[in-house]
Amino acid sequence: MPRRGSEEGSTRSERRSARGGGGIHQLPWRSLTNPYRPIEVISDDQVEAIHLASLRILSDIGMDFLHPEALDLLGAGGAQLTAGTQRVRFDPGLVEEMLGRTVPSFPLHARNPVHDLVMGSNSVGFATVASAPNVSDLDRGRRSGTFEDYCDFLRLGQFFNVIHMYGGYPVEPVDLPPGTRHLDCLAAMVTLTDKVFHAYSLGRGRILDALEIVRIGRGLTHERLATEPSMFTVVNTSSPLRLDGPMIEGLIEMARHGQLVVITPFTLSGAMAPATVAGALAQQNAEFLATLVLNQLAHPGAPVMYGGFTSNVDMKSGAPAFGTPEYTKAAMAGGQLARRYQLPYRSSNANASNAVDAQAAYESEMSLWGAVMGGAHMVMHGAGWMEGGLVASFEKFLVDIEILQTMSEFLQPLQVNEDELAFSAIEEVGPGGHFFGAAHTLERYERAFYAPILSDWRNFENWQLAGAEDATTRANRLWKQALSEYQPPPLEEDRAGELAEFVARRKAEGGVGS
Amino acid sequence: MPRRGSEEGSTRSERRSARGGGGIHQLPWRSLTNPYRPIEVISDDQVEAIHLASLRILSDIGMDFLHPEALDLLGAGGAQLTAGTQRVRFDPGLVEEMLGRTVPSFPLHARNPVHDLVMGSNSVGFATVASAPNVSDLDRGRRSGTFEDYCDFLRLGQFFNVIHMYGGYPVEPVDLPPGTRHLDCLAAMVTLTDKVFHAYSLGRGRILDALEIVRIGRGLTHERLATEPSMFTVVNTSSPLRLDGPMIEGLIEMARHGQLVVITPFTLSGAMAPATVAGALAQQNAEFLATLVLNQLAHPGAPVMYGGFTSNVDMKSGAPAFGTPEYTKAAMAGGQLARRYQLPYRSSNANASNAVDAQAAYESEMSLWGAVMGGAHMVMHGAGWMEGGLVASFEKFLVDIEILQTMSEFLQPLQVNEDELAFSAIEEVGPGGHFFGAAHTLERYERAFYAPILSDWRNFENWQLAGAEDATTRANRLWKQALSEYQPPPLEEDRAGELAEFVARRKAEGGVGS
Repeated sequence: MPRRGSEEGSTRSERRSARGGGGIHQLPWRSLTNPYRPIEVISDDQVEAIHLASLRILSDIGMDFLHPEALDLLGAGGAQLTAGTQRVRFDPGLVEEMLGRTVPSFPLHARNPVHDLVMGSNSVGFATVASAPNVSDLDRGRRSGTFEDYCDFLRLGQFFNVIHMYGGYPVEPVDLPPGTRHLDCLAAMVTLTDKVFHAYSLGRGRILDALEIVRIGRGLTHERLATEPSMFTVVNTSSPLRLDGPMIEGLIEMARHGQLVVITPFTLSGAMAPATVAGALAQQNAEFLATLVLNQLAHPGAPVMYGGFTSNVDMKSGAPAFGTPEYTKAAMAGGQLARRYQLPYRSSNANASNAVDAQAAYESEMSLWGAVMGGAHMVMHGAGWMEGGLVASFEKFLVDIEILQTMSEFLQPLQVNEDELAFSAIEEVGPGGHFFGAAHTLERYERAFYAPILSDWRNFENWQLAGAEDATTRANRLWKQALSEYQPPPLEEDRAGELAEFVARRKAEGGVGS
Repeated sequence: MPRRGSEEGSTRSERRSARGGGGIHQLPWRSLTNPYRPIEVISDDQVEAIHLASLRILSDIGMDFLHPEALDLLGAGGAQLTAGTQRVRFDPGLVEEMLGRTVPSFPLHARNPVHDLVMGSNSVGFATVASAPNVSDLDRGRRSGTFEDYCDFLRLGQFFNVIHMYGGYPVEPVDLPPGTRHLDCLAAMVTLTDKVFHAYSLGRGRILDALEIVRIGRGLTHERLATEPSMFTVVNTSSPLRLDGPMIEGLIEMARHGQLVVITPFTLSGAMAPATVAGALAQQNAEFLATLVLNQLAHPGAPVMYGGFTSNVDMKSGAPAFGTPEYTKAAMAGGQLARRYQLPYRSSNANASNAVDAQAAYESEMSLWGAVMGGAHMVMHGAGWMEGGLVASFEKFLVDIEILQTMSEFLQPLQVNEDELAFSAIEEVGPGGHFFGAAHTLERYERAFYAPILSDWRNFENWQLAGAEDATTRANRLWKQALSEYQPPPLEEDRAGELAEFVARRKAEGGVGS
């Protein structure tokens, strides 16, 4: 029984780009929801077995927290420390108590209220590629990322309405000094885009700067920011069973400021997790729960999400693989675990291909179906991710835009009513006729079906005459066209000024050091 | 709550090819089942609304049957004829009565009993591409199909265990004379393969020849063949609301011989069906039900499947599109209608791409997920279909083999038990360690995860050093390797002799004329 999706108001420029003119025709901005029942790949009993296995891991083995502040918080909260080590063990009761503090659904505010998101219920949001060290396109090849590339991905993420948020730096701008890179990058997030974004939990300093930048961008008081989740961070465990110091600092600071922490163990089955999906899920769940305890001890009720990133390695080479059948099942089972805890869920659109080819597309589809039909509320790396995360590709970004738009349309409920059932049109046309000229068809000429951006449906002869471009070649043309059509969203002058001032001051202070 | 899949015995050569040596490593033959609950894109009420709309179409508008034998059967069975026309109208009661004669599940016998299939319950079977007029590969380009190409596709379908059946001629061998083409083609089905195959309902003569060939291939009496579905035909309506004479002859003959008819309206929304998915589904359902009445009047209880092929055109050009969001929803809703009637369901793996590129892959994935999670028991055009059916591509065949193998593994239920949950491995490795050398990992080295045929998971540097081949280039190498490894299945000498004799005699008689 499908639930009804919702569509929100769009800005004038979004409506214009949706309708066209000479430009790229795309779908309008939508607060996307999934009207379908998630796919359940395991039974409720099996969900419970994984839950119990993870509680056993936490009580019998424990997890290492590499920061004294975490040990202090956890010890004071009732977890069991082992003197002289960073090992922490957890009673099931403490885990359950902390789970009881969480909230199942919350808003995630953007600078532009039209772009506000909901994390929870049946919402679905797509994020850009994040954290790739390299960038690639057909013109310039594969190379280290720069701030120029970084800004171009921000522009593409702003331009395409099917992108709901930024999951981190689309590509790492290695031409910027590490100590102040976050200042330039986050200031660009506020000026080039008006959608929700992410800040890295790489120590307390960067998070405090990020909090100030998002506050200025939204024009809030510190007090109000603390009550409105307006930014998120992904906290990755160093699997197996370890959480690093910089992540801990970021997690604590984000929680205390009421901002969203997405706890995502990196449980690569066969390498950092057991060589079975069930074992990797048990470990993922244990690492999630232990980190959740820290998060809720730092700030009871802080917005938090269940992140799943379980995939597997190629057993022959140890190379990480994505979009595998194991990945899809783990993504869906992860969603079942998140729902067991009544928490919103994060998954990813991942692939391991070296080229923007059929493999990149079919692995991405396997990941995306795992995420969306796994009930994910946040799909990280939605557009542009390649090579298991080592590359942000401009052409893959456009391929993914088509894939995400198609999925977004798939999630629009079928209308079944007198008019849509079209009895009178079928009667008018009659046996042996055709519907091209029927009134019912002409009424729907503009809006009947999804119109693609990248897909080419011309017949072979016309396609060949037009240059026989494959999808990747067309994607190359389209991302450049999108960049040329991009317009920066308005930013109030006083906020722009305050932002510039803050960045200049923090740079003068040396940022967070190098 | 997932149901359990089943895996059947495999032949020695299949086990060998699954384990490798220097050859292509592939999954073993499996009687595939879908353990997951199908995705429901419409409510039960909406299913009922489509059902009622199609009954109204049949009672108020009717359908044309272009053959006097159909009119005789339908008139005698209680349908309403209109003198001087081929128009037939149906009372809902007659439709319901004929639905009551059908069976929900039945076997489909192959020449090799290991390759027997079940149509119904939660079975899933993948068929090759069928009926393409053209063939394509990277070496020889796009061209008209020949018997040599035809035979090569038969060999590939036999070689790859994930292919369960042949959905027709993979490519039309236009170098063979039309009047005897079916004799050579079907004889090749029996000699080059031992899996289930299809015969075209292009008049009575071809079907009678096909029945004799499949009977000889299985070594059955005529009486036993009539009790064992051993072949199938796809009957396409000439939408809207028309069934052509040759199809009618084939349908009647197949039903009377107890063989499977897959009734598949070709309701291309916006062209041969209304420009709404609900309208196209209502028409699809009406055409299916009317044809089913003929089928069940011809032979009560004859095995029959509900076929769905609803897609949509590009409204700007009229070009057919596949793997669209509308297609995926229609495929899933079609499955709901088939289950409403307790009939097995046929869908397709379709795309409209002109190149074996990202578009070909993502459109195929959208179709395949629609089919599999729509509960399809037969997935036509599973491997090799391109350009909306105008081309059978050797490279796409290999891309689809990977896609189908991945889906087939996705359909294997996750194991969750003490051993798979791997507590002791997690304890052994402990926080901060790795699982590469763990006993639990080493025990699973060979079989832990799905091993791909086509996907390349090497890192970029190694991939580049090895020639930087994209998936389509690798597919080109792999289909040639598969052909070189192919071995024809054994055929009893007496059957081979009887088959050769039959074909020679029928050719001497001129086949079915030209």
